[in-house]
Amino acid sequence: MSRRWKITVEFDGRPFLGWQRQDHGPSVQACLEEAVHRFAQERVTVHAAGRTDSGVHATAMVASFDLEKDVGAEKVRDALNYHLKPNPVAVLRAEAMEGDFHARFSCIGRSYLYRIVNRRAPLALDAGRAWLVSHPLDADAMHAAAQRLVGQHDFTSFRASLCQAASPVKTLAELSVGRVGEEVRIVARARSFLHHQVRNMVGTLKMVGEGRWTADDVSSALAARNRSAAGQTAPADGLYFTHAFYPGERFDDPVT
Amino acid sequence: MSRRWKITVEFDGRPFLGWQRQDHGPSVQACLEEAVHRFAQERVTVHAAGRTDSGVHATAMVASFDLEKDVGAEKVRDALNYHLKPNPVAVLRAEAMEGDFHARFSCIGRSYLYRIVNRRAPLALDAGRAWLVSHPLDADAMHAAAQRLVGQHDFTSFRASLCQAASPVKTLAELSVGRVGEEVRIVARARSFLHHQVRNMVGTLKMVGEGRWTADDVSSALAARNRSAAGQTAPADGLYFTHAFYPGERFDDPVT
Repeated sequence: MSRRWKITVEFDGRPFLGWQRQDHGPSVQACLEEAVHRFAQERVTVHAAGRTDSGVHATAMVASFDLEKDVGAEKVRDALNYHLKPNPVAVLRAEAMEGDFHARFSCIGRSYLYRIVNRRAPLALDAGRAWLVSHPLDADAMHAAAQRLVGQHDFTSFRASLCQAASPVKTLAELSVGRVGEEVRIVARARSFLHHQVRNMVGTLKMVGEGRWTADDVSSALAARNRSAAGQTAPADGLYFTHAFYPGERFDDPVT
Repeated sequence: MSRRWKITVEFDGRPFLGWQRQDHGPSVQACLEEAVHRFAQERVTVHAAGRTDSGVHATAMVASFDLEKDVGAEKVRDALNYHLKPNPVAVLRAEAMEGDFHARFSCIGRSYLYRIVNRRAPLALDAGRAWLVSHPLDADAMHAAAQRLVGQHDFTSFRASLCQAASPVKTLAELSVGRVGEEVRIVARARSFLHHQVRNMVGTLKMVGEGRWTADDVSSALAARNRSAAGQTAPADGLYFTHAFYPGERFDDPVT
């Protein structure tokens, strides 16, 4: 009798082509599936709450898989971590779940953090881990403009051309911008996102922070339903998957 | 007529043998001196407030050097950063100073931050950038014990055997320990430190955090004036040089 496992995973996205297994290079999924095989001699598919792009990081990605091997949660965590070395992927927690739990399909919400370092000097400590923006950013103006995107909208203007979602309509529960010293942090939360949606929203808010766009320009970009009407795609470096919400966890939708 | 420059430098210590120029491998000093040469065709010596060890990082090391070339501060910063690529060293600021300013000899205080990540799972995002301690640490007990080391003492028990300081007597102005989530952060501030003093104090406080030592044991270790009486040397990974104080900046000594 197999058991379903939920794992919470931290990873540095730099060496990977992204979460999803690829034929032509390393992926977080392949690392985890290989670690499961080395530990339990079982070939499994590890499903994630979010299929992050190349270079995107995670502080707490959630994934699930089935295991025949009968072991405890601490053993699963420690054995996977042992076999994951030297990849920059770490299993923070492992939990045995009911058989109907699925990291992707059971997920009712996702949170991302986007980090901008706002200064002239290049990044030494945060190279590959944040977006360097040298023009001074007005975080308050960015936050105010971000509220134009909160709620249920057709996000076609913020959707990658490769996006496979059936509908461009999504409900953005939160888009907050705040400054901590030289860092501008953006938190995005929704049931689900379109491909590149967070990075395209960040690239658009940067225009506002630089004073080149107003909040009304953001509303116009949204209304245009045209990718070329919004800002650039912010680099993967600054993006972190930070939380997956499941039933029983509080996930407030915005008042729309 | 040459001008004296003060620069504030961020670096990731992982690829370096430390601050100081070495014959057998890369150093932060050599990177900076080479960047100055490429930019100004001048061979200079770059002096630092602190000569950090191999693997130790800096968020704001201060260094000084003389330049014949007549240029402005922004040009010095930007040109050095251009020539520092791809090394993980960044000049945050450059300031023209009076000729008697010396990053090391004018410095009246230094601050370090030590980062411990306190959890079972390995470090993915913070590999090489923090000390992983898996046994739960009591940060409050560490902070209380740390106060036994504040003030003027003979720090022989916390001094590396290679230390070249004339005297083992130093005045520790601050040694604070606090927890932020799974991270335990230690701030150390003094006019100057002995070789490995911060890392040896951190290794000793870890014993307290784990419940293996009491604050009285820390006092006894200090009184023993014997390196073997104190705890292990914490790894370089978690140590960051964070501030150099100069005349005109407030640097409070403790009441001793």
